[in-house]
Amino acid sequence: MKVGLIGLGKMGLNLGQNLLDHHHEVVAFDVNPSAVENMKQYGATGVSSYKELIQSLDHPRIVWIMVPHAVVDSVIGEISPYLEKGDIVVEAGNSHYKESIQRYNELKEIGVRFMDAGTSGGMEGARNGACYMIGGDPEAWEVVQHLFKDTAVENGFLYAGKAGSGHFLKMVHNGIEYAMMAAIGEGFEVLEKSDFDFDYEKVARVWNNGSVIRSWLMELTENAFSKYPNLDEIKGIMHSSGEGKWTVEAALDLKTATPVIAMSLLMRYRSLEDDTFTGKVVAALRNEFGGHTVEKN
Amino acid sequence: MKVGLIGLGKMGLNLGQNLLDHHHEVVAFDVNPSAVENMKQYGATGVSSYKELIQSLDHPRIVWIMVPHAVVDSVIGEISPYLEKGDIVVEAGNSHYKESIQRYNELKEIGVRFMDAGTSGGMEGARNGACYMIGGDPEAWEVVQHLFKDTAVENGFLYAGKAGSGHFLKMVHNGIEYAMMAAIGEGFEVLEKSDFDFDYEKVARVWNNGSVIRSWLMELTENAFSKYPNLDEIKGIMHSSGEGKWTVEAALDLKTATPVIAMSLLMRYRSLEDDTFTGKVVAALRNEFGGHTVEKN
Repeated sequence: MKVGLIGLGKMGLNLGQNLLDHHHEVVAFDVNPSAVENMKQYGATGVSSYKELIQSLDHPRIVWIMVPHAVVDSVIGEISPYLEKGDIVVEAGNSHYKESIQRYNELKEIGVRFMDAGTSGGMEGARNGACYMIGGDPEAWEVVQHLFKDTAVENGFLYAGKAGSGHFLKMVHNGIEYAMMAAIGEGFEVLEKSDFDFDYEKVARVWNNGSVIRSWLMELTENAFSKYPNLDEIKGIMHSSGEGKWTVEAALDLKTATPVIAMSLLMRYRSLEDDTFTGKVVAALRNEFGGHTVEKN
Repeated sequence: MKVGLIGLGKMGLNLGQNLLDHHHEVVAFDVNPSAVENMKQYGATGVSSYKELIQSLDHPRIVWIMVPHAVVDSVIGEISPYLEKGDIVVEAGNSHYKESIQRYNELKEIGVRFMDAGTSGGMEGARNGACYMIGGDPEAWEVVQHLFKDTAVENGFLYAGKAGSGHFLKMVHNGIEYAMMAAIGEGFEVLEKSDFDFDYEKVARVWNNGSVIRSWLMELTENAFSKYPNLDEIKGIMHSSGEGKWTVEAALDLKTATPVIAMSLLMRYRSLEDDTFTGKVVAALRNEFGGHTVEKN
């Protein structure tokens, strides 16, 4: 199957190789010409413009967009003038599901079929077998399903239904991930603060073998402790890239109580602060009513 | 190796068979004579009293206790008169680590070596390969380690150090488990409340294949949804058996912030209530200051 691949960064480059492994024809474009050259070395056809990309494809043209969230709209704006009725645009980045529904509706007006695909598994997954959650029209799914099936791990793809459902699932997946990671982190903090002397790599290893909490995240925990036995080299600052916040926002819109996921998000924000204004206010109040000591800056 | 097994319930019966599979000699006792008869059918030697059990063993006697938490002390009280210096008592149930330290110290006074072992993996694990976290004296560990190694999954045992460390690790394991389960539950609740129409079994399946949140708990989620597609048959009442609470209590004692684990515990308590007094108070207050409607009982 011939596919136009836009975005040859960490994810796109790996996905492109994965598609080529499965005997798909990849026509590749990136705003960075050296990324295109790199992709060509693996057997892709490189092009030097959006126009050339679209015009190199067969009807219906299938375009797979794998670019950072912030530039998705501009990429769609660039390719839209060349797209025709029946063409299919797959957006496999980390977009908000509401944006995906909007893009679906906008492209529908010109007869172009938009599919939102959440991708999990990181670079390794993109290269050797990803996990996909896909939304959009079932007729478009029929056309593109082999691209997903071929580049996913076995059973690692789900056509989830109408537009937005793919990115909605991916968003909730990440919300669950936030709280699972917080659970693991807090558990090891209790071990660290205790009077016992645990070898954290060995603890993670035993928890990965036969226990109820065995999981890929615990395997990554084991890997991390194998490199940094006490994580002395690492600061406990937990950045986030949006989906945890989106999950909590969706839960609020749906009036759904998700306190555990919400707390895991809020503790990420707490980790970004050296000191807190909350803390200053509470310390000042204790001083006001009880004369309790405040620590001076 | 010859081992005295006390407690032939769901866990003990399976562990007994597992020990026999690995060519250990099992002398079995339970207060329920029919459980002893049952165990004998698998090749164990059945005895009819604690005294007979201890006297059937070789020196140093090794006694493995697999009984409900509430009766551990009474079992130890029953066997203590027959134990001698150098004997080893393994307690592999779900005891609080502070109780295990106390039992270690009490038995040390009569020269008996106590080991606390947390066991994960459920009945299936006990039968075919469990996950163990073990605390106690290293010399005693040398004597009993083969019993653990033989009945665990590969790499599914960890001698974690001094007395109490085994049950402490198991406690924290369960605390992590509480929050992981809450994460999964909340995630599916967001899906359920959304406008999309997801097949939860298929969602759990795709999340088990290549995603970041793939885990044994997600596999159990997939199994559950395969039996009950929307869980209509099940009430959302989340009981608990102690270790989550113990983890939060330990975190409080250690002044360690574990809000995600704590929240998962508190939401279990919330699930036990049809209505809450908190809710009544807040509803009454809204009515007092703003004339907002209250719903009458």
